Amino acid sequence: MTCSQIDRKVKRTMRIGIVGYGNIGKGVEAAVEKAQDMELAAVFTRRDPSSVKTVCDVPVISYDEIGSMKDEIDVLILCGGSATDLPWMTPELAADFNVIDSFDNHSKIPEHFANVDAAASEGGKIGIISCGWDPGYFSLARILADAALPDGDSYTFWGRGVSQGHSDAIRRIEGVADARQYTVPVEAALDKVRTGEHPEFTARDMHHRECYVVAEEGADKAAIEEAIKTMPAYFEPYDTTVEFITQEELNEKHAGLPHGGTVLRSGHTGFDNEFNNTVEFSLNLDSNPHFTSSILVAAARAAYRMNQEGQSGARTLFDVPPAYLSHQSREELLAHML
Amino acid sequence: MTCSQIDRKVKRTMRIGIVGYGNIGKGVEAAVEKAQDMELAAVFTRRDPSSVKTVCDVPVISYDEIGSMKDEIDVLILCGGSATDLPWMTPELAADFNVIDSFDNHSKIPEHFANVDAAASEGGKIGIISCGWDPGYFSLARILADAALPDGDSYTFWGRGVSQGHSDAIRRIEGVADARQYTVPVEAALDKVRTGEHPEFTARDMHHRECYVVAEEGADKAAIEEAIKTMPAYFEPYDTTVEFITQEELNEKHAGLPHGGTVLRSGHTGFDNEFNNTVEFSLNLDSNPHFTSSILVAAARAAYRMNQEGQSGARTLFDVPPAYLSHQSREELLAHML
Repeated sequence: MTCSQIDRKVKRTMRIGIVGYGNIGKGVEAAVEKAQDMELAAVFTRRDPSSVKTVCDVPVISYDEIGSMKDEIDVLILCGGSATDLPWMTPELAADFNVIDSFDNHSKIPEHFANVDAAASEGGKIGIISCGWDPGYFSLARILADAALPDGDSYTFWGRGVSQGHSDAIRRIEGVADARQYTVPVEAALDKVRTGEHPEFTARDMHHRECYVVAEEGADKAAIEEAIKTMPAYFEPYDTTVEFITQEELNEKHAGLPHGGTVLRSGHTGFDNEFNNTVEFSLNLDSNPHFTSSILVAAARAAYRMNQEGQSGARTLFDVPPAYLSHQSREELLAHML
Repeated sequence: MTCSQIDRKVKRTMRIGIVGYGNIGKGVEAAVEKAQDMELAAVFTRRDPSSVKTVCDVPVISYDEIGSMKDEIDVLILCGGSATDLPWMTPELAADFNVIDSFDNHSKIPEHFANVDAAASEGGKIGIISCGWDPGYFSLARILADAALPDGDSYTFWGRGVSQGHSDAIRRIEGVADARQYTVPVEAALDKVRTGEHPEFTARDMHHRECYVVAEEGADKAAIEEAIKTMPAYFEPYDTTVEFITQEELNEKHAGLPHGGTVLRSGHTGFDNEFNNTVEFSLNLDSNPHFTSSILVAAARAAYRMNQEGQSGARTLFDVPPAYLSHQSREELLAHML
């Protein structure tokens, strides 16, 4: 990786801080460096800062010192996990900074929103939560499809892509050295919705799961396959295929983190519901974390603008005028994008 | 057509007026009657009101008396044409009403926006322009795809669907009794973009045109076909097929106004542009005017809410937080749509 896209001569207005430097943090670094209206001020880490080296030589600062940087940062993009980091981190930082996160624990979103709202309102800052691709970008597809066709049914299909949670679940099985799991949408189910039917699907009807597994030497492959296929919630509700491959093959063919999916809504218009219509929104991504990062960066631009207007409190992408996500001026948008 | 969906017991809050009762006006009537937070107060017409009968028995009032209805209407949805009606009508009405239109003359959008902005700002009202499906809904697809993948190329394909402008152009040829023209996207061009190529297309590469023509008795069919295929701007830049059929066949097989299309963006992420990604947004509509109407009604909901907040001036869908288009409450959106 290089840092070739940077043009330091262009005036940059928004100063971005990254909190957490994993896959998403690195993706945010790449996306910010390509955004001509932003500059990357610092990466904050809970590790020893001297152990973290960024691609574009951004200053790396201890998380403990983040409070001293209030005046140097316009928006913090939080790149921690939804399970243990973001529930406390987003509210904590929203008191002092405009913040963006990709919180994705659907059932806890209302609670997380309330916590961020309290802190951000108190601090006069904006916090936009759940800005990944789902929740986030796909949520926008869902709300726009629903607004256009209020009388209808929506379906979200994920994949073909790597589910890191499911891959991890396989790796925890005894005798498994490594694994990669692909979530695959069932094409026949997509086609059924496209024809204007409004089917009620089971989990099995919509997705199947493809597993590539590296077994430890001497491991019982039949037992591993059985353990995968019967794992509750993760695999049992789906048609699951298991293929044993070597570590070399896994490294060679399954190293990436591609993902994607489709939001599909089928709805009626007309006085007697006589017209069928479908709205379909699809993503096909070579890199799941880099696309997530790209959405986070667009959301950071919106947070900055909303806070500059005097707004504060928690928001989701549902609350953001699309123009605020764009690097283009109002005149450019009216002349070329509308 | 019936009016079966109405549930008059539900509390309705927004009072909508329709200006112009053609295909779009009728579609707005159907969509408003199904929206539980709206009621239809009146249809305004420049024809003799006694000659206009609405499906749901809405009061029909002369356009000349519209000024007396300022206090009875929350949002006016303007269903006139972009060529001769909306350029004067939207600014005129924006001085006294929140207004929505589907102005679609792309090159004149900046001028129309400025005219509506001046009138609406002066009157303390909101005017949202260009709220059809293109410009409008497809514009939202374009801006969201661009914001997510700023380093990329966007393509808009239209069809398969009936172009009324092209059908009218054929009807004006001597010897033509009736005609229907379908705009058809070239599937190979879509596939090329989906593979991550960034092709530069000519008009011919992206769309072809299918014409079904009813010739008058004794007309010179070869001359008609030649006149169609060589018509500048409309047909000459495209591969065009012409099929002569009877009026009965036209009425039977080509009576509808289906349309649709795809906005497709292909873009890179990563420090070295090493990841390809595509975002694809498709519509497949049995009725073009009824879907346009559905977007207009969602935009009316947003205009009402923005004006209730004290906002005024001209807007486009780029300026509207998606939540404002939705009939769902904030709590429902957070819990189920995000």
